[in-house]
Amino acid sequence: MKFSKVLGCAITVLFVAATLASLSLAQDETTAKVKVRWRMPTSFPTVLDNLHGGGVMLTERVSALTDGGFKITPYAAGELLPAFGVLEGIQTGSVEAGYSGGFYYLGKNPSLLFDTVVPFGMTPRQHYAWMMEGGGLEMMREVYAEFNTINIPCGNTGAQMGGWFRKPIDSVDDIKGLRIRAAGLTGAIYADLGAVPQQIPPTDLYPAMERGALDAVEFVGPYDDERLGFHKVAKYYYSPGVLEAGTSFSLMVNKDSYEALPSSYQAALQSACAEVNSRTLARYDDLNVKALRRIVNGGVELRAWNEDIMIAMKESADNVMGKMAEDSAQFAAIYKKWKDYRDSQLLWTSVNDTAAENFLIRNTK
Amino acid sequence: MKFSKVLGCAITVLFVAATLASLSLAQDETTAKVKVRWRMPTSFPTVLDNLHGGGVMLTERVSALTDGGFKITPYAAGELLPAFGVLEGIQTGSVEAGYSGGFYYLGKNPSLLFDTVVPFGMTPRQHYAWMMEGGGLEMMREVYAEFNTINIPCGNTGAQMGGWFRKPIDSVDDIKGLRIRAAGLTGAIYADLGAVPQQIPPTDLYPAMERGALDAVEFVGPYDDERLGFHKVAKYYYSPGVLEAGTSFSLMVNKDSYEALPSSYQAALQSACAEVNSRTLARYDDLNVKALRRIVNGGVELRAWNEDIMIAMKESADNVMGKMAEDSAQFAAIYKKWKDYRDSQLLWTSVNDTAAENFLIRNTK
Repeated sequence: MKFSKVLGCAITVLFVAATLASLSLAQDETTAKVKVRWRMPTSFPTVLDNLHGGGVMLTERVSALTDGGFKITPYAAGELLPAFGVLEGIQTGSVEAGYSGGFYYLGKNPSLLFDTVVPFGMTPRQHYAWMMEGGGLEMMREVYAEFNTINIPCGNTGAQMGGWFRKPIDSVDDIKGLRIRAAGLTGAIYADLGAVPQQIPPTDLYPAMERGALDAVEFVGPYDDERLGFHKVAKYYYSPGVLEAGTSFSLMVNKDSYEALPSSYQAALQSACAEVNSRTLARYDDLNVKALRRIVNGGVELRAWNEDIMIAMKESADNVMGKMAEDSAQFAAIYKKWKDYRDSQLLWTSVNDTAAENFLIRNTK
Repeated sequence: MKFSKVLGCAITVLFVAATLASLSLAQDETTAKVKVRWRMPTSFPTVLDNLHGGGVMLTERVSALTDGGFKITPYAAGELLPAFGVLEGIQTGSVEAGYSGGFYYLGKNPSLLFDTVVPFGMTPRQHYAWMMEGGGLEMMREVYAEFNTINIPCGNTGAQMGGWFRKPIDSVDDIKGLRIRAAGLTGAIYADLGAVPQQIPPTDLYPAMERGALDAVEFVGPYDDERLGFHKVAKYYYSPGVLEAGTSFSLMVNKDSYEALPSSYQAALQSACAEVNSRTLARYDDLNVKALRRIVNGGVELRAWNEDIMIAMKESADNVMGKMAEDSAQFAAIYKKWKDYRDSQLLWTSVNDTAAENFLIRNTK
């Protein structure tokens, strides 16, 4: 080996050593700051980058607020726990927190529905008013207490779309027999309407539509739906999303883990969730209209449910919710208060905010 | 003096001394935590407890997030600076921050309008999407940079009401000659419609209406309006608030003060503002409908603007804004982008969210 080569190697070794040293120093500095480490599974695959992304944003904001002291590591669905195993993981203490939606756990307690979205229910803004000012959060905290869990509203999609259909839906008869992917309560409503709801994980939906195993998909909205490719396998895209007029997600935290936090870290969770709640909705509003334009320009036919179909959906929703209220006194009690609040918010918006918006819709070109 | 009395006095003195010592200890502990102290005037009197209160909430959340390290003291309008002297106070560095609205300073720069509310403009949700995802915040930061100030969206009233009138307004002719309290751009629009707008501080409005010096008041919404007593001096209450479909307030911060903060304190301002933004709106939504019911039950007649009046208002708004765009290239450039964004958000909501809300308004009793 020539001298120059030996020297070269030595320099390389020195350089690598120095780099490693500085990397490890940087890591030490970062690590030294961390005072609390949590793991937080979400119920979403990474492809849904504004749903899983809401959880990621939360962890980033909490880190920024605590000067790196509170490190929460997010995990996509399946990485640590199954998509809908999040609440159980928190309850048993196998994870400290999770980013999910109450309505995925109706089998555990149907009242968890009110944490997320109720058919023919409130807008994101109205839901937040109910939660923060109308006693909703207090009632939901009681429901989650059964699972040793605290919930914080933390993300919203806005109204979801009516869904993707291979054939036009001109009457309730056209719904009968349809194999439609519709999760949770939406599935029960479609069953009441005579459809055959299917439970299929998000990333399996496109192939199921492609090979004809499914006739229709109700999923989220233009941005997420386009990412999953539904515009390539269904011609008709229906709105408005009366079955989910604003779907709210929650940070769920193990109660013992929450109470062990210093109060400023508890405050960080609360403020960061409020921020994520608005920011995810802003992102959806920004992204959805762009995606909708691409989808329609690509040849998909955008259609509005006719009034008869929406009225039938509302009757089915009332049936399904009515049965749930018969089976659970807790559900019945929350449902009554929730309905009173929705009706008062409807009155207010019909007088002012929605009335102003309707004028603009009529008169802007 | 009996011995028992002397003893009693001594015990009292000891008790008082001990109490004072413990008070002073508690104060020392609190004071020791404070690392940054700011003063923050607001543009609102304390009677408007959800407007001034939004500022107060911000200071409380920032304190909680920083474990008491960042103490911001709020001052109501007039306590430290005049209501509309806030931006100048920040620019000159006499205070570090303020809680106010851009539209109070149109004389300094008309483009500040877009920070707050534009006639026939966006809902709170759409405004937030424009700010955070549509390039709005970036443009507004450029405008505020002229004043060495950074703005953060931090509170919203929702759509404001059309206002209080002594006589019915059945046509545009009924507006002509009206002495109406209408601030800022709303005043200019009423002037264009033939009214005679008046600038009167909030707490002087009730006496002015009572003694007949004013014919009408456009102010905020049922909750604030009721607190100022307008329902006692005007019979007709008009909606919808097309001239202010969502009025957004801002935390304004001196740029040097902001940049001197540790990054976690900057994050605290941002997250706390996002939280206050949603929480003030939730409070208004909760309080406004209750106040509206009281107002209507008390004999006030709630009326909707007829279509012709709203169309005339829109033409006047277009006139006024058109002139502003002629006078300022900056205003013209922002206005164009703002309008494109509003129109795309209108399209989206007309397809989905507002369409769902309208079904509910039609079909819920």
